[in-house]
Amino acid sequence: MTDFNKTKAFFKIDSNLIYLDGNSLGPMPLNAQARARQTIEDEWGKQLILAWNKAGWMDLSAKIANRIAPLIGASDGTVMMGDTLSIKVYQALAACLSKQKGRKVILSDRGNFPTDLYMAQGLIDQLDQGHRIETPPPEAVEASIQAIGDDLAVLMLTHVDYRTGRMHDMHRLTQLAQSKGAMVIWDLAHSAGAVNLNIEASNAEFAAGCSYKYLNGGPGAPAFIYVRQDIIPKLAPVLSGWLGHQSPFDFDLDYLPASGIERMRIGTPSVIQLSILDAAMEVWQDMDMLALRRQSQKLTSLFIKLIGEQLPDLKLVSPIDPEARGSQVSYAFEEGYAVMQALIAAGVIGDFRAPNIMRFGFAPLYNDEDQVQRAVIILTKIMRERLWDRPEYKQKAKVT
Amino acid sequence: MTDFNKTKAFFKIDSNLIYLDGNSLGPMPLNAQARARQTIEDEWGKQLILAWNKAGWMDLSAKIANRIAPLIGASDGTVMMGDTLSIKVYQALAACLSKQKGRKVILSDRGNFPTDLYMAQGLIDQLDQGHRIETPPPEAVEASIQAIGDDLAVLMLTHVDYRTGRMHDMHRLTQLAQSKGAMVIWDLAHSAGAVNLNIEASNAEFAAGCSYKYLNGGPGAPAFIYVRQDIIPKLAPVLSGWLGHQSPFDFDLDYLPASGIERMRIGTPSVIQLSILDAAMEVWQDMDMLALRRQSQKLTSLFIKLIGEQLPDLKLVSPIDPEARGSQVSYAFEEGYAVMQALIAAGVIGDFRAPNIMRFGFAPLYNDEDQVQRAVIILTKIMRERLWDRPEYKQKAKVT
Repeated sequence: MTDFNKTKAFFKIDSNLIYLDGNSLGPMPLNAQARARQTIEDEWGKQLILAWNKAGWMDLSAKIANRIAPLIGASDGTVMMGDTLSIKVYQALAACLSKQKGRKVILSDRGNFPTDLYMAQGLIDQLDQGHRIETPPPEAVEASIQAIGDDLAVLMLTHVDYRTGRMHDMHRLTQLAQSKGAMVIWDLAHSAGAVNLNIEASNAEFAAGCSYKYLNGGPGAPAFIYVRQDIIPKLAPVLSGWLGHQSPFDFDLDYLPASGIERMRIGTPSVIQLSILDAAMEVWQDMDMLALRRQSQKLTSLFIKLIGEQLPDLKLVSPIDPEARGSQVSYAFEEGYAVMQALIAAGVIGDFRAPNIMRFGFAPLYNDEDQVQRAVIILTKIMRERLWDRPEYKQKAKVT
Repeated sequence: MTDFNKTKAFFKIDSNLIYLDGNSLGPMPLNAQARARQTIEDEWGKQLILAWNKAGWMDLSAKIANRIAPLIGASDGTVMMGDTLSIKVYQALAACLSKQKGRKVILSDRGNFPTDLYMAQGLIDQLDQGHRIETPPPEAVEASIQAIGDDLAVLMLTHVDYRTGRMHDMHRLTQLAQSKGAMVIWDLAHSAGAVNLNIEASNAEFAAGCSYKYLNGGPGAPAFIYVRQDIIPKLAPVLSGWLGHQSPFDFDLDYLPASGIERMRIGTPSVIQLSILDAAMEVWQDMDMLALRRQSQKLTSLFIKLIGEQLPDLKLVSPIDPEARGSQVSYAFEEGYAVMQALIAAGVIGDFRAPNIMRFGFAPLYNDEDQVQRAVIILTKIMRERLWDRPEYKQKAKVT
C-alpha cells in the first residue's frame, strides 16, 4: 500500500489529535484488537498448548521477520524477531568482539541511544579484555575511524540520531570501517519504516531495530536482528538459548546452533505481542519505501519551513538538508519540557528528550500536510503567548 | 483465594477437556481478554505514548514482580520481571562468574532444562576463561559438590525437573554449595505457582522463573529474576540496558545502575503481555501456598495410585514420595508420543518430552480429583486397547 490517503484508515487516532510521536510509539492499527482477541481467546483459550503448532505460534517470529526484511533491504532468512533491541545489540556486539581478537576499540558516537552504549559498557566490563568505547560527536565519526585505524574492532552506530534526527551515511561509513578491518552494526530503531534502507548493499555485518516505533507493533513489541547472509553459518551465538538450537525439541544437553538465522533466537517468544505486530505489518505489504521516504521528507521539510517563518528564533537541531535527516525534526529550547506539555494539552503529541530537545516524528502512514500546518499554528501560539510558562506544564513526569 | 472449588471459575477451559499441561502453558484466565482490550484500545489506542505514565506501563514490571514475590518466599523489591528465562539465567550466571574469579566449575545436572545449559555453554565460550560445566545425574549433585569443592563457582539447578518432576532439596543443596564458597542459582520454572517455596530462607543468591506455566500469564509472558537482598546493591548487571539505569530518562552516556532490583531490567518491557499477566495474578491474591501444595500432592498421588492399579506395567519416572516431587507426574513409554496424541484426541492434554516421557502437570487452581479419575480411565483404555497404535498418532509435529 503506498497511497498515503488510504493508509490513515489503517490506524485508530482521535481526529482531534495530531500525533507526532510515532518515533517513540506508533499508534494502534485498527486490526490490533481483533488479532489480539483471536490469539488470546481462540488460540490460547481454546487450543491451549496445541496452539504452538495449530495456530503457527512457533513460526510467527520468522514470518514477521520476513515481512520486515524488505523494508530494510534484507533478504528472506536474514532477519529474526525476538527480545529487545538492547539484547539484539548485545548479541551483535558480542559476536563481533569474539571475531576481532586483538582489536580493542568500539567506536560509536555521542548521539547513539544510551542503551546501545550501556550494553557495550556492560559487555566490555564482563569480558575484561581491555576494550574501550569511543563516543565522538556524530560528525567526527569518519575522522575517528581514520584515527583508530587497525585498533577498530567494531563501528556501532544508530543510523538516525534519536535526538536530532541526523542520519549517518550508512554505506560510506560501513565501507570506511570495513576498509580498516572493522565490523559494523547499525541500530535501525529510528530508520526501519521511516527511511528507505538497503542494509544488504551497505555490506554491514549486523543491524538491529525495534518494531514499536514506525512499525506500529505496540508497546513492548519485540526487536529484530539482521545478520549478513554469508556470516550466519559461521556465527556462534552468544546468547545461545534453546530456540536457537538446531532441534529444540530434542532437548539435547549440548547446544548446536540452528543452520540459519533461527540461531539468533533465544527463549520463548512473546506470542501475543508478535501476533499484534503481525497484524500491524499488513499496512507495509508492497510498500514503496522510496515513495514513503519522499513523503516523509515533504512533511519534515514543510514543518521546518513553517517554523522558520513563524518562529525564526527557535533553534533547529535537525539537519536542514532533507537527505541528511530521518523522519523527525527537533528543536532545542531551554523550557522544551514545559512547551511539550502545553502542546500535548493542546492536542499535539511530540516528545521531549533531555536536556532541552523538543522532538517531532512524522510518519506518512498517518501524518499529512494539514496536520503539519495545524501543529505549527498551535506551537506558534504557545511560544508567542508563553503559554508554556504555567506551573502545571513544568512538573516532570516519570517518563518524559 | 484458596478455595480450589472457586479458583476454577477464574479460567476458561472447555468442560470436555482435561488439561494436564499447565506446566507447559497455563490456561487462559477469563479476565485476560478484557485486560488486553483495555491495554490495547483504551491505553495504547487512546493515550498513545502518554500511557507510559498515565496507564502505569512503566511501573507494571515492578508491580507484577511484587505479586510473584510472596509465591516464592521473596520480599518486595527483590524480584523483577522482564525478558525470557534464558536471559535471566544468563544475567544471574554471568554475575556469579564475575564474582568467582579463580573458580572454574558450573555444576548443574542432566535434568536441567537445556536452555539453562545452553546459555551457560555460550557464556563460558564467550568468556574463554577455562570454565567447565558438569552435568551429573540429579541424584549425584550432592556428591559432585563435595568432589568439586573449592573449584565450584556456581551451583545452577532447575528445582523441579522438567521431565521427571523430581524436586531437589533447595535448602540442603544451597547450604552445601555455599559451604564450599559457591554461589547458587535456582531455576523455578516448574516450581513457581506449583510448590511452596521460601527462596529467601534458602539463602540462594539468585533465582529465575517463567510466568506462562503455573502462573498462567499467557504464551510468551515475561520471566522473573530474584536477587538476594544483600547483594542487589553490589551487583554490576551484565546485560546493562537503559531501563536498569538509575535515571533512564536523563539519557546519560554512562551506565549507572538503579539503586534497587530495577537494575536487573534491560530494555523496553512487553507491556501487553505484562498487563495480561497482571490480570492472571489476581487469582494468587492471598493464596495459601502450603494448602496449594497439599492439594497438588493429593492430585499427583491419586494419579500415581490409580495408574498403578490400572496399568501396573507403565514405568513411573517421577518420585513416588510426594515430598520429593513437584506438581507433575511422568511415565516412560517407548511409544509415548503416539499415546499422548491419542490422549489429546480423547480430550486429555498432557505432553511428551523426548525421548520417551509422557508428562502430566496438575494445577489445583483448575484440576480436581474427578479429572484425575477420568484421565486415568481414558489413558487406561488407550493403553489396553493399543489405540495409540494408529498411524495418525505417530506423526510428530514440530513442537512436541
